Amino acid sequence: MRTLNKEDIEDLAVGAAILGTGGGGDPYLGKLTAIQALEEGHAINVVGVSEVPDDALIIPSAGMGTPTVIIEKIPRGTEIINAFKALSDYLGREVYATMPIEAGGLNSTFPLAVGAKMGIPIVDADGMGRAFPELQMTTFHIHGVPVTPMALADERDNTVLLKTCDNFWAEWIARDITVRFGGAAWIALYPMTGKELKKASIPGTLGLAQRLGAAIREARENGESPIEALLEASDGFEVFKGKIIDVERRTTGGFARGQTEIEGIDDYRGQTLTVQFQNENLVAIVGGTVSACVPDLITILDLETAIPITTEAVKYGYRCIVIGISCSEKWRSARALEVAGPRYFGYDIEYRPISKLREETG
Amino acid sequence: MRTLNKEDIEDLAVGAAILGTGGGGDPYLGKLTAIQALEEGHAINVVGVSEVPDDALIIPSAGMGTPTVIIEKIPRGTEIINAFKALSDYLGREVYATMPIEAGGLNSTFPLAVGAKMGIPIVDADGMGRAFPELQMTTFHIHGVPVTPMALADERDNTVLLKTCDNFWAEWIARDITVRFGGAAWIALYPMTGKELKKASIPGTLGLAQRLGAAIREARENGESPIEALLEASDGFEVFKGKIIDVERRTTGGFARGQTEIEGIDDYRGQTLTVQFQNENLVAIVGGTVSACVPDLITILDLETAIPITTEAVKYGYRCIVIGISCSEKWRSARALEVAGPRYFGYDIEYRPISKLREETG
Repeated sequence: MRTLNKEDIEDLAVGAAILGTGGGGDPYLGKLTAIQALEEGHAINVVGVSEVPDDALIIPSAGMGTPTVIIEKIPRGTEIINAFKALSDYLGREVYATMPIEAGGLNSTFPLAVGAKMGIPIVDADGMGRAFPELQMTTFHIHGVPVTPMALADERDNTVLLKTCDNFWAEWIARDITVRFGGAAWIALYPMTGKELKKASIPGTLGLAQRLGAAIREARENGESPIEALLEASDGFEVFKGKIIDVERRTTGGFARGQTEIEGIDDYRGQTLTVQFQNENLVAIVGGTVSACVPDLITILDLETAIPITTEAVKYGYRCIVIGISCSEKWRSARALEVAGPRYFGYDIEYRPISKLREETG
Repeated sequence: MRTLNKEDIEDLAVGAAILGTGGGGDPYLGKLTAIQALEEGHAINVVGVSEVPDDALIIPSAGMGTPTVIIEKIPRGTEIINAFKALSDYLGREVYATMPIEAGGLNSTFPLAVGAKMGIPIVDADGMGRAFPELQMTTFHIHGVPVTPMALADERDNTVLLKTCDNFWAEWIARDITVRFGGAAWIALYPMTGKELKKASIPGTLGLAQRLGAAIREARENGESPIEALLEASDGFEVFKGKIIDVERRTTGGFARGQTEIEGIDDYRGQTLTVQFQNENLVAIVGGTVSACVPDLITILDLETAIPITTEAVKYGYRCIVIGISCSEKWRSARALEVAGPRYFGYDIEYRPISKLREETG
C-alpha cells in the first residue's frame, strides 16, 4: 500500500491522459477531483493487485459519456459516490477497494476520489491499460467478468441499477441512459472478487501513468525535452509532427466521433496525418497508409509541453506530436481483437502492432 | 375478497379495453395471460381498497411501450414476474398485493396473472380509471406518490431498477429503456402503502370493467343491442357512427402516434370524425368542433359486436361507433388537468366535460 500526495496526483493525471489516447477525460478536471478529496482530509491509498485477498469484493468506478459534454457539465463529485453506494448497497457486502476501468485524465483519478471518500484503497490496475469508448471493451469482459450489476447516477440524484443478459446489452442500455442523463453518467460496475481481479485486470496502470507524468515534469524541471523523456518512459514511437488544420467532431449516439487532420512539419513536411476517433483516437493514417491503429495507443501531445490533448480539446492551430504506444499483450489475442480491434470499429484494417508498422515506415 | 373465474376474466378484459380508450393493450392477449395463470392452478383473488391494511405494501405491475410492438412481440409472462421480484427484493419487505396502474385490455389483466403467480391478491383499483400514455399520468402522481423505485424487465432477462428525482424523470428514462428493449418493457412501479392507496387510487376499476364486459356479453346472449347495454352500464355517450376511411400511424419515441378518420353513416352522414391518439385516443373532432377530449374516455367499438378496437388494431373499413365516457372526478381538478389535460398533449383546447359537450351538440 502506498499513499499519494498532490504531486503524485498531478503526475498521474497527465500520464493517465497520455494512456487515455485522446479519451478518458480531461486531466485538469481529473486532478482537481482527486486533490479536492485530499484537501478534505481523506487519504488516497493505492494497493497492488497481489495485495488484494482472493475473496475481497472490488467495485470499479468511472465516468461514462461524451467527453465534449463532461467538460461543460463538471461533476459535483457526489454523483459517483451515489452510484458506488447504490451498487454496494445492492450487493450488500463489504467493499474492499475500488479501481479504474480505464486509463484517462478523468477516469484514472475519479476512482482515487471515490476510494478516498469511501475510506477504501484503490487497486493499481485497470481493465484496458488505455481508454476505450465502450463498456465491454475490457480485459474483464475478455475474461468473463459481467459488467452488471452496474449502477449509474447523475447530478439530479437519479440512479439506475442495471442487470443485463450480457455485456453488450449493458453497454447498449447504459449508453442510452447516459444520453437521457444529458450526455454523462457516473458509474460503478464490473463488481469482482480479488481472484477475478488477478486474472482479468491489467496490473500497474496507475503506477505507469504516474511514472509517465513524472518523466514529463522532471524533464521540464531539468530543461530537457519532455517529449523525449516520455517516449523513453513509455517505450513509445513518434508517429507524426505537425499543426492541426481541421477537426471534424459530432456528438452522436452518446459518443464524440470525428477526425483530426494534421499538416506535417519538419520531417513530415508535405504529408497530412488523419486521426479518426470515437471518444478515443482509433486510427492514424498518412497518405492511405496506416501509421498506428487500435488497440495500440495513439496520443496527440502539445509539441512543446508534452501535455496530452484529448479529443474534446483538439483544435485548429495546435502544434502537436502524435505518438504511438504498444497496447497490453492482453489486447493482441484474436479474441481480444474481436472485442476492440480495428474491424469492431468499422475499419477494414488488419491489426498490426505499432512496433512492426514503425519498422516498415521508419 | 372475491375470486375470479374464466368468464369473469373474459368480461373484465373486454370492459377494461373499453376503459383503455384505445390503449392499455389488446384484450385478447390480456385475457389469455390471466386465463393461463388460472389453468396453471393459481387463484385470482381480488380485494377491495378498504380491505387493505394501512401499513401493507402494494406494488402495481404493468406493460409499458408501444402497443403496435406488443402485439407482435407477445410476452412470455415471466418478464413481468422478473420485474416484480426485482422491485420487491429491492424493497426487502413482504408485498401484500399487486394492482393495475391503468385500465386496458392488457394492463388490467396482467396484474391478475402477477398476483396469481405470486400468491397475492389484486387490489380492485388503478391509478387512472382509464389508460394514459405516460407513467406520471396517474392519480398516484397527483397525490404525491413517487413512480420509483421502479423495475423494468424484458424477455432476455435484462432488468433495470430506477430511482429518479421526480416522476417526469422516471417516465423520461423508462421510456428510453423501453425503446432499447425493443419497444416493450414489463414494469413494477409506484410501490405504496395501503394508506397511500386509499388516498391516491381510483377504486373499483376492475369491478367496473367486469360489469361493462358482462353487460355486453349478456346483451349479446339475449339478442339485445350490446352497444345500448354498454352505454347504459357506463353512463356513456354516443359520439359518432361511421366507417374508418384512413389511419395514419407512426411509432416514434416509444409511442404509437397518429389519427383515425371516420366517415359518418346514419345520423352522421356527410360528416367526418378525426380521432387523434398517442397510444390512447386523445381528441375527437368533427368539422373543427371538439366532440370529446382527454381526460374523458374516447373509445372506438365494432358497430355490431361492441368489441373495443384498440389504436394498434384500427384499420380501413371497420364499421364502428365512437363513444365517450366521463373520466373520474379526480381528473377534473386544475392540477390534474395540468398533468393529463388536452394542453399537456399539445392541443390548444380548453377541457370541457363530455356531458357538457354532448348537451351543446346533442
